[in-house]
Amino acid sequence: MRFELIVLGSSAAVPALGRHCSGQLLCLESSNVLFDCGEATQQQLQRTGESPGRLDLILITHLHGDHYFGLPGLLTSMALAGRKAPLVIVSPPGLRDRMAVLLEYDKYAPPFNIDFIEIHCEEPTVLIDLPAFTVTGFPLDHRIKTNGYLLREKQRPANILPEKIKEFSIPYKQIPGIKAGDSFLTNDGRTIPHEELTRPASPPRAFAYCSDTLFKPELAKVIRGVDLLYHEATFLHEDLEKALKTNHSTALQAGEMASLAKTKQLLIGHFSARYHDLEPLRMEAAEKFRNTHLARELYHYPVALRRANHQEH
Amino acid sequence: MRFELIVLGSSAAVPALGRHCSGQLLCLESSNVLFDCGEATQQQLQRTGESPGRLDLILITHLHGDHYFGLPGLLTSMALAGRKAPLVIVSPPGLRDRMAVLLEYDKYAPPFNIDFIEIHCEEPTVLIDLPAFTVTGFPLDHRIKTNGYLLREKQRPANILPEKIKEFSIPYKQIPGIKAGDSFLTNDGRTIPHEELTRPASPPRAFAYCSDTLFKPELAKVIRGVDLLYHEATFLHEDLEKALKTNHSTALQAGEMASLAKTKQLLIGHFSARYHDLEPLRMEAAEKFRNTHLARELYHYPVALRRANHQEH
Repeated sequence: MRFELIVLGSSAAVPALGRHCSGQLLCLESSNVLFDCGEATQQQLQRTGESPGRLDLILITHLHGDHYFGLPGLLTSMALAGRKAPLVIVSPPGLRDRMAVLLEYDKYAPPFNIDFIEIHCEEPTVLIDLPAFTVTGFPLDHRIKTNGYLLREKQRPANILPEKIKEFSIPYKQIPGIKAGDSFLTNDGRTIPHEELTRPASPPRAFAYCSDTLFKPELAKVIRGVDLLYHEATFLHEDLEKALKTNHSTALQAGEMASLAKTKQLLIGHFSARYHDLEPLRMEAAEKFRNTHLARELYHYPVALRRANHQEH
Repeated sequence: MRFELIVLGSSAAVPALGRHCSGQLLCLESSNVLFDCGEATQQQLQRTGESPGRLDLILITHLHGDHYFGLPGLLTSMALAGRKAPLVIVSPPGLRDRMAVLLEYDKYAPPFNIDFIEIHCEEPTVLIDLPAFTVTGFPLDHRIKTNGYLLREKQRPANILPEKIKEFSIPYKQIPGIKAGDSFLTNDGRTIPHEELTRPASPPRAFAYCSDTLFKPELAKVIRGVDLLYHEATFLHEDLEKALKTNHSTALQAGEMASLAKTKQLLIGHFSARYHDLEPLRMEAAEKFRNTHLARELYHYPVALRRANHQEH
């Protein structure tokens, strides 16, 4: 059950030092989800080797160019490749009009349907509800309307224990019910509780994407306990004044957020072009939250399934 | 006296196989000129090591995305870098409005002046006339309004021969006049003609940029004798039908054009992603015009000064 993030771009504002503008691809079992789409995202996607056909959901945080200037090219290339499958794009209001202006040329319209969901989430709001996962949008605090996104797998049904099927001669057609929580009535009239017949499924995994934003402690309750938190860390804390002035965060604050929210892993990115060496940013965040990683282009960050553990619920 | 083309992108329509969308940088003595600006042009410009401050003229052939989707990012990055110098952008009509839609965000306006010259040249038209060079726009035959561009150096004044200054004791303040064509009157009343005192300057160099277009034989007279011709060669001639259908050229036709126009060197590009190996395209063009080169990303194509030769005038 794949749940693996690939970083496409880790640079703030301008592509620099070989780093690209914002973009991250979350690869799931059934499909891929793109978070932000800075310039040259389509080239970076090519480099991942992931099939473009698996991408059917794009989540744009805000309408600063470094987060969406790659979208017109990506949509055009999808069209030229003959894509037919529909695509859902979530963003704060205004994206659809901008894309329309660019894509109207040459009497051109993509030969596939694009469902633009334009919303600025002023509170946590479920935006996408699919069999495999939900996406919740929530407000970030940047210079313009900005959404963070939380993607959470749906709880999978419990796993039935094969030896119990044999032991109680459970008919196959009753198995889905038992996995979903039914108890089982044996031929001799005994009731075997669900818990005795099954092993709980691995808990759902979750990824939160927070870029761009001021440090916002109240965010912790929204993203609490996620397996992987991406939080922007545009500046070192010695440049806090710059962060406050531009509504960005420091690496220390990103670490603080991961700690407050009790996340399992922190990925920092959106690095200012002023920093050639990124290790000081990682070390700074790690002061607050040890399990911190740098977003590095085309690196994979898989999230493994965990064993079910009632204490974690 | 630098006159050197750097190819930034050589791919048609979609970036593919490591090739970028259209973009070429002509580096001149006084400044740089950008021809087309496909997605990720700003990253390619960074890779050239050329100073962004030297770029003050951008020529966009037409409003298909693969020729201008890199412009919003490039302009934004120029603004973020604190550019103050004005910029001139030439294109067919519609570009200014599209850029305005994208750059209006965050109450953002570039802190430098952009002079948009929006014109579709229905006949050869001088669009830029600077001390060092002129740019002439001319019509190409593509699916939408498309300009080709011809950049030609101005004729430099003749070089005065140092030994003649000594021989006739020519006062320094008369030298500019003699270089420009005056004869010289000696103290003893003799008139020394201009030709005897000077060596003609190297002839002006010229570069023509023809993308995207159907093969158009009547173009030959417009670009006649240029030192370097870039002509698109999207397809092999065996795919002529595709070229005709999409208003593109084949490599054979690009060679034919260079031959008809008696250009000195041909550069072909805008290669369809269907071709992994480009050598067959070069060979095909070279059947018609021997001095043919493939546009390869980040390769430099310098044009040397030639000795003045009256037969060439």
